[in-house]
Amino acid sequence: MRSVKSSEEKLILVNFISLWREREMAIPAALRPFSTVVYSANRLTPSISSIHRPKTLLCSSASLSNLVGSEAGVCLSVGTHLIPHPDKVEKGGEDAFFVSNHRGGVIAVADGVSGWAEKDVNPALFSRELMAHASSLVEDEEVNYEPRSLIRKAHAATTSIGSATTVVAMLERNGILKMANVGDCGVRIIRRGQIVFSTSPQEHYFDCPFQLSSEAAGQTFLDATVMTVELMEEDTVVMGSDGLFDNVYDTEILAVVDSCDNVADAAKALANLAHSHSKDSSFDSPYSQEARARGFDVPWWKKFMGMKLTGGKLDDITVIIGQVESSLSSL
Amino acid sequence: MRSVKSSEEKLILVNFISLWREREMAIPAALRPFSTVVYSANRLTPSISSIHRPKTLLCSSASLSNLVGSEAGVCLSVGTHLIPHPDKVEKGGEDAFFVSNHRGGVIAVADGVSGWAEKDVNPALFSRELMAHASSLVEDEEVNYEPRSLIRKAHAATTSIGSATTVVAMLERNGILKMANVGDCGVRIIRRGQIVFSTSPQEHYFDCPFQLSSEAAGQTFLDATVMTVELMEEDTVVMGSDGLFDNVYDTEILAVVDSCDNVADAAKALANLAHSHSKDSSFDSPYSQEARARGFDVPWWKKFMGMKLTGGKLDDITVIIGQVESSLSSL
Repeated sequence: MRSVKSSEEKLILVNFISLWREREMAIPAALRPFSTVVYSANRLTPSISSIHRPKTLLCSSASLSNLVGSEAGVCLSVGTHLIPHPDKVEKGGEDAFFVSNHRGGVIAVADGVSGWAEKDVNPALFSRELMAHASSLVEDEEVNYEPRSLIRKAHAATTSIGSATTVVAMLERNGILKMANVGDCGVRIIRRGQIVFSTSPQEHYFDCPFQLSSEAAGQTFLDATVMTVELMEEDTVVMGSDGLFDNVYDTEILAVVDSCDNVADAAKALANLAHSHSKDSSFDSPYSQEARARGFDVPWWKKFMGMKLTGGKLDDITVIIGQVESSLSSL
Repeated sequence: MRSVKSSEEKLILVNFISLWREREMAIPAALRPFSTVVYSANRLTPSISSIHRPKTLLCSSASLSNLVGSEAGVCLSVGTHLIPHPDKVEKGGEDAFFVSNHRGGVIAVADGVSGWAEKDVNPALFSRELMAHASSLVEDEEVNYEPRSLIRKAHAATTSIGSATTVVAMLERNGILKMANVGDCGVRIIRRGQIVFSTSPQEHYFDCPFQLSSEAAGQTFLDATVMTVELMEEDTVVMGSDGLFDNVYDTEILAVVDSCDNVADAAKALANLAHSHSKDSSFDSPYSQEARARGFDVPWWKKFMGMKLTGGKLDDITVIIGQVESSLSSL
């Protein structure tokens, strides 16, 4: 991103209102639901809304070139965007996510596994309930601000039938970003125009990711890949469901983030690009490249004519962008 | 790897003999130089030898399925292999590395930047001296078992002219692998047959990596990407110079590691595969794919004939394989 310091900047922070309530904080006017409700609430999830949020609510400005290890704190300025699968727009899709401003900031995505629809189970229920519990457990003592523990307790509390992939990232004020990942949601960290960190997807086989489940056969917190990265001020964290990473190349992520003025615009632009690619049957997406590498392709006679398997992957698309900023005061 | 428990297992540990001397430990017969000296010593580096090392010297066996977070300790069983650039065999190439058995184990690679040869500077001097200092600083109090601090102090102590990329990984007994990376050396972590973690290369532009340098214009420890991953018993850590990752795909790394009985064989097999690909002008290597993606290719008239830029990248190739094992006693 060119800068997030513009006076015209309008950061969008999507958050569970319940989080604010728990902390017994009045919801400032600036946090009341803004124009578009990105993600509809239902019985199992607290309200999730797209919210106008001045940066100063989360961070105050300061000039520090490298905060990691210093006494000063950092936090994330966050923008989000969710675009449901075209066939699932009415129900809001099966991705769920939350953002919390606890400590340096917490961001998380869960992607409900769509196969459950074949068993007459709404695949959105599990992912939404998982994220709802996770959001309410962010400050839990037993969780101890550890992403794997957050996944453990949120999973244990989830009673819906279904399964979901999930990734959780929790930023400490000292710049340490702690992550736990189960499945094929993902994180990229951009520093000075290049990706310096990527998560790797976990899967049983092509298109069958590791997943937290209501069934014993699924994965648990013990299967999470647990990582930390030391962030620096102005690093950008890009988190998404596989709907983002299956449709958008890392080089495109870099270009889009670089071209946007703020995290909200970047999240929206990335989600829109992923959505556009997902519907483009001629686009040679990361998904189609991977499919060919795994042996899936058009029939031999089409190959003979120079054709190959192409196209994006229709899916729910969730993008969360967090930019690391200095913060001299905590909320 | 199928198993490292074979009684016929012969682990090769490459280490600075000086490390053992500093610790006032007699070098056991089993540690005396074995058949092939992988990497010749010179004035600036302590002796580096390929050494026969029974696993029990580093680890004792125990049956624990997931050691991370438990009281029991883990350590790395390490195998290494270095193949110099075909034109640099006589001088041993410009890669350098070391392995230490301190705490859970330390592994590191440095890759001397070859451009210095144009200035009549031997590019191997800087990387070798850097690794020599790093190896001697592993237990330094100020380093505090932090890879970035190790890079800082080793870089500060290095007086040779030149520059090098480097990656350092230090395993804690509790399974936390701490890494710092400057440039395009790399690490992959394999768990149950899939890569669950990869480093991302840092570069100024194509084929010009971030590098620690004798010159002020170079990068420093502050530019390192600093990460941790929680390892589990039987995880495999694959560390290498770009000579490995430019010539061998991740899928090939998985296949080779899976097909080998022990870390020494795996390191050798991976280095040999990289060497073979590096000399194959028709192989569509990761390097040639990346070059094309960056706009480098054959002239248009060759493209018109269906040709494209292919081939491996001739380079020094260093491979270090570490497998996580339980260890109930420390050395």
